[in-house]
Amino acid sequence: MTHPVTRIDDTVHQRVRLGILALLDPVKSVDFTRLRDEMGLTDGNLSRHLQVLEAAGFLSIDKGFDGRKPRTWVSITRDGRKALHKEIAALRELIASYDG
Amino acid sequence: MTHPVTRIDDTVHQRVRLGILALLDPVKSVDFTRLRDEMGLTDGNLSRHLQVLEAAGFLSIDKGFDGRKPRTWVSITRDGRKALHKEIAALRELIASYDG
Repeated sequence: MTHPVTRIDDTVHQRVRLGILALLDPVKSVDFTRLRDEMGLTDGNLSRHLQVLEAAGFLSIDKGFDGRKPRTWVSITRDGRKALHKEIAALRELIASYDG
Repeated sequence: MTHPVTRIDDTVHQRVRLGILALLDPVKSVDFTRLRDEMGLTDGNLSRHLQVLEAAGFLSIDKGFDGRKPRTWVSITRDGRKALHKEIAALRELIASYDG
């Protein structure tokens, strides 16, 4: 028998990326600056994590304008929601075995 | 307000290390080879993760013999249990906000 954590994907499990996906999950999209501030990251650090998640197909990034102010909107994809759901299931399994 | 994952420590949250601490938590000690097999790791990979956890003060490693066979026993420390407990609490918070 293998341990629940062997079924965890590091792309999603990594602390910051897990937080990003969890923030994006219940909403249509989140602005880059709000994500950055809620996660307590620098622009560069957030950008790197967004790139990893975008490359995995877990989110989409749209650049646009809010009036004359440039804005970047980040949205979770269907595959991103599936990956997050799988991660949450693995964490529930881990917690259940911790409690048991 | 910051996100639950900002209160997570990467030393404990990293997939393999979380699995190691969770395996060690309910028992006195676990043999190196059993840890390696349950986690599906190579000797080298497990050794590196054990070093990180030992350096953090989260586990202790004892080398000895079982008859004439060399054995390495790994045990979680009191600080390791505290760190795992804190991680599990942060994961519960994350799951609660996912479910809410």
